[in-house]
Amino acid sequence: MDIGTIVGLVSGAGLILSAILMGGSLGMFIDMPSVFIVIGGSLATGFIKFPMHDVFNTVKVMMKVFLFKAESEDKTINDMMNYAKIAKSEGLIALEKEKPDDEYAAKALQFLSDGIDEGLIEAMLKKDIKMMVDRHTVGKEFFSQLGLAAPAFGMIGTLVGLVQMLGNMSDPSSIGPSMAIALLTTLYGAIVANLVFLPIAFKLEYRSTEEKSIKNIILEATIGITRGIPPMVLEESLRIFLDPKKRVEISSGNKKD
Amino acid sequence: MDIGTIVGLVSGAGLILSAILMGGSLGMFIDMPSVFIVIGGSLATGFIKFPMHDVFNTVKVMMKVFLFKAESEDKTINDMMNYAKIAKSEGLIALEKEKPDDEYAAKALQFLSDGIDEGLIEAMLKKDIKMMVDRHTVGKEFFSQLGLAAPAFGMIGTLVGLVQMLGNMSDPSSIGPSMAIALLTTLYGAIVANLVFLPIAFKLEYRSTEEKSIKNIILEATIGITRGIPPMVLEESLRIFLDPKKRVEISSGNKKD
Amino acid sequence: MDIGTIVGLVSGAGLILSAILMGGSLGMFIDMPSVFIVIGGSLATGFIKFPMHDVFNTVKVMMKVFLFKAESEDKTINDMMNYAKIAKSEGLIALEKEKPDDEYAAKALQFLSDGIDEGLIEAMLKKDIKMMVDRHTVGKEFFSQLGLAAPAFGMIGTLVGLVQMLGNMSDPSSIGPSMAIALLTTLYGAIVANLVFLPIAFKLEYRSTEEKSIKNIILEATIGITRGIPPMVLEESLRIFLDPKKRVEISSGNKKD
Amino acid sequence: MDIGTIVGLVSGAGLILSAILMGGSLGMFIDMPSVFIVIGGSLATGFIKFPMHDVFNTVKVMMKVFLFKAESEDKTINDMMNYAKIAKSEGLIALEKEKPDDEYAAKALQFLSDGIDEGLIEAMLKKDIKMMVDRHTVGKEFFSQLGLAAPAFGMIGTLVGLVQMLGNMSDPSSIGPSMAIALLTTLYGAIVANLVFLPIAFKLEYRSTEEKSIKNIILEATIGITRGIPPMVLEESLRIFLDPKKRVEISSGNKKD
Amino acid sequence: MDIGTIVGLVSGAGLILSAILMGGSLGMFIDMPSVFIVIGGSLATGFIKFPMHDVFNTVKVMMKVFLFKAESEDKTINDMMNYAKIAKSEGLIALEKEKPDDEYAAKALQFLSDGIDEGLIEAMLKKDIKMMVDRHTVGKEFFSQLGLAAPAFGMIGTLVGLVQMLGNMSDPSSIGPSMAIALLTTLYGAIVANLVFLPIAFKLEYRSTEEKSIKNIILEATIGITRGIPPMVLEESLRIFLDPKKRVEISSGNKKD
Repeated sequence: MDIGTIVGLVSGAGLILSAILMGGSLGMFIDMPSVFIVIGGSLATGFIKFPMHDVFNTVKVMMKVFLFKAESEDKTINDMMNYAKIAKSEGLIALEKEKPDDEYAAKALQFLSDGIDEGLIEAMLKKDIKMMVDRHTVGKEFFSQLGLAAPAFGMIGTLVGLVQMLGNMSDPSSIGPSMAIALLTTLYGAIVANLVFLPIAFKLEYRSTEEKSIKNIILEATIGITRGIPPMVLEESLRIFLDPKKRVEISSGNKKD
Repeated sequence: MDIGTIVGLVSGAGLILSAILMGGSLGMFIDMPSVFIVIGGSLATGFIKFPMHDVFNTVKVMMKVFLFKAESEDKTINDMMNYAKIAKSEGLIALEKEKPDDEYAAKALQFLSDGIDEGLIEAMLKKDIKMMVDRHTVGKEFFSQLGLAAPAFGMIGTLVGLVQMLGNMSDPSSIGPSMAIALLTTLYGAIVANLVFLPIAFKLEYRSTEEKSIKNIILEATIGITRGIPPMVLEESLRIFLDPKKRVEISSGNKKD
Repeated sequence: MDIGTIVGLVSGAGLILSAILMGGSLGMFIDMPSVFIVIGGSLATGFIKFPMHDVFNTVKVMMKVFLFKAESEDKTINDMMNYAKIAKSEGLIALEKEKPDDEYAAKALQFLSDGIDEGLIEAMLKKDIKMMVDRHTVGKEFFSQLGLAAPAFGMIGTLVGLVQMLGNMSDPSSIGPSMAIALLTTLYGAIVANLVFLPIAFKLEYRSTEEKSIKNIILEATIGITRGIPPMVLEESLRIFLDPKKRVEISSGNKKD
Repeated sequence: MDIGTIVGLVSGAGLILSAILMGGSLGMFIDMPSVFIVIGGSLATGFIKFPMHDVFNTVKVMMKVFLFKAESEDKTINDMMNYAKIAKSEGLIALEKEKPDDEYAAKALQFLSDGIDEGLIEAMLKKDIKMMVDRHTVGKEFFSQLGLAAPAFGMIGTLVGLVQMLGNMSDPSSIGPSMAIALLTTLYGAIVANLVFLPIAFKLEYRSTEEKSIKNIILEATIGITRGIPPMVLEESLRIFLDPKKRVEISSGNKKD
Repeated sequence: MDIGTIVGLVSGAGLILSAILMGGSLGMFIDMPSVFIVIGGSLATGFIKFPMHDVFNTVKVMMKVFLFKAESEDKTINDMMNYAKIAKSEGLIALEKEKPDDEYAAKALQFLSDGIDEGLIEAMLKKDIKMMVDRHTVGKEFFSQLGLAAPAFGMIGTLVGLVQMLGNMSDPSSIGPSMAIALLTTLYGAIVANLVFLPIAFKLEYRSTEEKSIKNIILEATIGITRGIPPMVLEESLRIFLDPKKRVEISSGNKKD
């Protein structure tokens, strides 16, 4: 469970809300037509820009921002080192019995135990990472595009309001409130873009990078196994993926084994 | 038929229209000179930026946004696997009898049955993809450039209106309505750019990516056939192009065969 | 002669002009100091950014936008196929007698007939394309930079006018006209950037791409000749450079031969 | 200790402060809710965009901007040349006794003395640099994102203030002060983004480049040692990393040895 | 001496000055606090972003914009062709006696006469170019960053002035002049960014490209000499670096030799 995302959304919304309440009532900041034009308009461009199944897929993608938990890099390295030692002592065929939780690692082990050509294994595992990144990019890009569309529709709503206000200036006392309402769509557009759409797009990309990093460890370990690199050297090589401080811990932890 | 594009355009336009009607009459939002300056000005820059045949080609390109339907990835993989099995059992020459609907696949099969050198086949098929992407880029870029020009001409129109208004301020009661009309070009520019031109440019690029993806499957299968990769391994390799969930379905579907 | 560029410039200017005339007289939109600050200021930055010979070279480069006519791809392919057949039947030395109009093709044939090493020919022809693109980039970049500078100097002029107006507000009736004049530089900057400088920069890049495309056909044909690729296969390979619809025409045209 | 960063921050803040004091009292520029919405809102998006441990890691990263001191390039080259001479005269195994302060150099020497395969050493050392750059990029990106969010939240705060002001225009004398307060969030956003967040992000990237440069010297020296390049040539090659003026000094300094 | 830079700066400043003088006195456009906040603030961020020695190095870098004169490409080609002919007739060792003015060419000749391995020569000469480009990039980036900071500090100064004006609106007649002064920082920021900082950054990059181009000619000639390419072919290859029109001149000039 990703607490940071929730903390950020709640505290950001809370700050804006308290700024509103300190200066008056919340009522004057609520205008349903403005909500429709900003959120609805942004989603409408989403339907033009993306195929429908991608739009409906979004809810699932968004869940990832709240629920995703990347595999630990330490554990992945330890697991892969175990497989490397098994391959060294019992042969590649012995990897058939191993059942890693990670789908990607499972596929890598299966390729190894099937005795598929070394170059093909590398090509297929690399393509798998590339395809994953491509799929993630669609989800990330969807929210980026909403983040671009929302301020634009905010401006469109404000322009509509301004034109209406300027066309009916017979009652000077209504100018202020009319303009306040006109500005609300710009405000809505700025808030949903900067507090919701753009940060979610960023987090999705970050998550994708984390998943890719784990897969790169598995990929490199698998290539090392096919090339018969000595486990000591392979471990040294995989530990480079870790933050220097973590490397020491793992290193000493392994010595205890 | 791409329903999403129509849903998006109609709902987006509907939202803006209802926002206008809720605040007054539609009449004050219609100003033909403003339409001419925004749409006409944007198209004028299109004529300067692109050769004339590209400009006239646009209507056909735009149809693609509404009508295009990418080949299914599953079907493409199944088709190519059939050709791979035929090549394995009956030799490359037997592919001559196969007539795929997809032009690109047809060309690949012809190269294979003609016995053209493996490296040349790969080079020609890759260049074919690159040329297609280049052609699509022109269409996409045309709408992107309109999407950049429309808000600029919106601003130009508003500046023209403001200068005229500021030069004749003898009648204070006319200031509001004059400014309302001046703002209309900015509003038009924002709407056509953000609801029409930019989303269409985005969809065209998305469609290009989908077509490229299908062609990459055909390309990889063809290379696999020339290299004599075992059908089992080739299928595994092609299935990586699919979304993991789809992979399982195809996999079990194939087992039934 | 590139009619599109002239159509675009004339119609774009005409649209803005008619918008001005519909709302009043042209007189209030003409202010020579504003012209000087926008055009002069942009050119001044051009002198700082580029060496003087590049600045003076601009007039010639701009002519290209109006006069340039790219060689037809069909004709280039047919010409190169002729040379390939001559090389096949009479040897590379026979190409010495051929005198193509295109300088680049002429150079390629000369390299072939001089018997220069295959790798060197490819390296030299590729460098020639790269140098041409670099030269074109300077011209294109010059207009892009003017397109960036013009709105900035438009804003500078408007700020100068605003400061002067705000410092002398004793006569309220002069505020409107003063501000109208101040806004003119912003209007000029927006027009020359969006209707002239940026579209010309875009067209120059487009022309460069077209020329590069023709040169790539010649390059690939030349490499094919040095490698002794069979004319049938070479033609197939070159035809990939064409739009699929054109490919058919050429293909059937060749059958008539 | 990086004096430049402190000089820049203090003098930048001092300039803004003196501009404020020259025009009146500081009091009217202090508004705590505005501080909360700009700083708090920016940090809130930081929590959504980055995992929590990255957010908390920031303080440590920021210290780097003030305390970091890159190893001197001259000294690194001299050190590596010493190791190269030892390797030449006593063999790679003799490097085991050397204990460089720099962790990366220490690892390189260990790889050399362990007799690990030349290609693997290069691959591991390069990956180490890449991983360092990736880690630094997170820190740099965190401040870049704050620098993007701060002006956005400044605008959101100003819009909130404007809507409140426009909704209550009964007392004309309060319009000015209300608008002044509304503008404060925009001012805060502009200051923290342009004087603090963006410059710190830039400096972090600059520091990363300096560290990478030192590591590249060590990498190239190590590769040179594995390939047995003569020390004279290796030194010539490493000196290219230096500014031409420094090269001369080192060169003459070495002659004294 | 680069006259263009001076012509551009003087004429640009003159245009703005004359626009000011035509509309009133220069006095109202001079405000020292505004100068301090824009120039001082921009420099302050420069101190945060760059190490101090880079900041102080700037004056020297800026001189380059006014004084730099790139070596002529024609002369460089002729010089290198002479060395190539000497190497051909008398052997590489004979190059020891040649003393080119250009440091880079001198180094290349020394490598050649020292008999260093061909691959190493290429690697070292390429790295030398890369390091030069990196050093130039710092200078260019410094002015680019000032060009980004100046308008930001202009806006900060204007916001400070606006807040002060809005807080003291008791005297309506002072509103205009106060706002005029507030706008001055925005004007200053726009002028120094668009007329000074950004054009200088652009010219520095342009100069770097020119230097790189000369070095690439020397690099290619040196590689050609190590590979023993016939002088005739080498000259043909180097002449591709020239503008087609110049090529002819050199070509005919050489025939006279």
